[in-house]
Amino acid sequence: MDTFEKEFEVRDYELDIQGIVNNAVYNNYFEHTRHAFLKSCGLNFSQMHDEGLDAVVIKMETEYKAPLQSGHHFVCTLKAEPEGRLKIVFFQEILKLPERKLMTKSRVTVACVKNNRPVEPVEIREKMGLSL
Amino acid sequence: MDTFEKEFEVRDYELDIQGIVNNAVYNNYFEHTRHAFLKSCGLNFSQMHDEGLDAVVIKMETEYKAPLQSGHHFVCTLKAEPEGRLKIVFFQEILKLPERKLMTKSRVTVACVKNNRPVEPVEIREKMGLSL
Amino acid sequence: MDTFEKEFEVRDYELDIQGIVNNAVYNNYFEHTRHAFLKSCGLNFSQMHDEGLDAVVIKMETEYKAPLQSGHHFVCTLKAEPEGRLKIVFFQEILKLPERKLMTKSRVTVACVKNNRPVEPVEIREKMGLSL
Amino acid sequence: MDTFEKEFEVRDYELDIQGIVNNAVYNNYFEHTRHAFLKSCGLNFSQMHDEGLDAVVIKMETEYKAPLQSGHHFVCTLKAEPEGRLKIVFFQEILKLPERKLMTKSRVTVACVKNNRPVEPVEIREKMGLSL
Repeated sequence: MDTFEKEFEVRDYELDIQGIVNNAVYNNYFEHTRHAFLKSCGLNFSQMHDEGLDAVVIKMETEYKAPLQSGHHFVCTLKAEPEGRLKIVFFQEILKLPERKLMTKSRVTVACVKNNRPVEPVEIREKMGLSL
Repeated sequence: MDTFEKEFEVRDYELDIQGIVNNAVYNNYFEHTRHAFLKSCGLNFSQMHDEGLDAVVIKMETEYKAPLQSGHHFVCTLKAEPEGRLKIVFFQEILKLPERKLMTKSRVTVACVKNNRPVEPVEIREKMGLSL
Repeated sequence: MDTFEKEFEVRDYELDIQGIVNNAVYNNYFEHTRHAFLKSCGLNFSQMHDEGLDAVVIKMETEYKAPLQSGHHFVCTLKAEPEGRLKIVFFQEILKLPERKLMTKSRVTVACVKNNRPVEPVEIREKMGLSL
Repeated sequence: MDTFEKEFEVRDYELDIQGIVNNAVYNNYFEHTRHAFLKSCGLNFSQMHDEGLDAVVIKMETEYKAPLQSGHHFVCTLKAEPEGRLKIVFFQEILKLPERKLMTKSRVTVACVKNNRPVEPVEIREKMGLSL
């Protein structure tokens, strides 16, 4: 798959007392980008939930390399890969514009749950164009 | 050092459409526990910032094992260890009460910055009772 | 009814770049206090939603008198009154401890919705001990 | 002045368990729009703070008319007016696209503080093109 990208700008309420984007907010950026990617594949997170299928994050490994600050524009990127039959891994980066400087990167592992039980994301994988 | 603990309850605005605490919110729990720990050591995050010394998270490795839901009470635990001269690692867990079931765990690496340059957290390490 | 109270402490991630609690966060404090009050009346916001009954805020009038800052402890108070057949009004205040200094006050109007239609909150009013 | 507008889309982490945008999040939308407006006038919230001048919200009167949901696109509008010598009032609306349906409106009163004392926002008023 090609790398998916979504553009953002820092909002001042996302800054903390240090004048930098709080580390929890990056999870928000990463999630919004994943959901936008789902949508671009014809999948809808909110609708999936209504149909009883929940994609849940089970692991995040995040490196904060340089802090986003007030006024910064950036893209959040995403590349997906299957991990075994049950998981999908998203490699995500936050690149400050215009120079595309790497600010933060994360490896996000997601599993799917239907009626509280693990389920193989066959249709999701297909729509994302991923093969085992 | 002994394990430090802070008690919390889930607040409904922390839940997302799936009815579980959003993954970003755990970063908030972990952070608030670290700052409470700092305070218990005679350190003050907000005051440190005013004096030009910022502790910043440079890495988080988080495993989400079971989701917190509406009404849950839990403790967030913390154990600190130095990593080399420049970093401190916090091992943090979220344990649902009353059974202390492990819900989430994180390994949080923090570095200190003074006037935008890395600085050895000598006084912080001392006040935390950590030795190299 | 007696005034209901819930105790809080400021968490540093709730501060913004000005070093004060961001105005949106007070809505969180007010909501969490309302939900705790519901619970004390034998009502459960999350369960109500699962049963198709949603209490939704339709108006908030908030005065910010003095800003909460890092380390502050406070109570959030609540008094409920019916407004006509369809609405309940919550008078809420945030009082900094220990001196109970008024920091913020809000008048929050809530309506109930079942299957997307307004519904008279008869049982809720009863459990809250409110009479028309 | 003309009405200022900023376009947004709902992010799923902004939804609560009811599947609608949590009422606190509207304050975030309103704030981000005010700061974007400041920027369009040659003012910078973050820089103003560094120079000791803080614009603080002292009152918000918000009506929630219809809830934003997953996938919604909307604009947040703003019109500013001075109120006496010391305050500026922002009339803000959230209009769902494409039909520009009114979802939420707020009247936000802001005062300026320098070194913790009220100060007349003369320069700010000028840059915003407001006259008494």
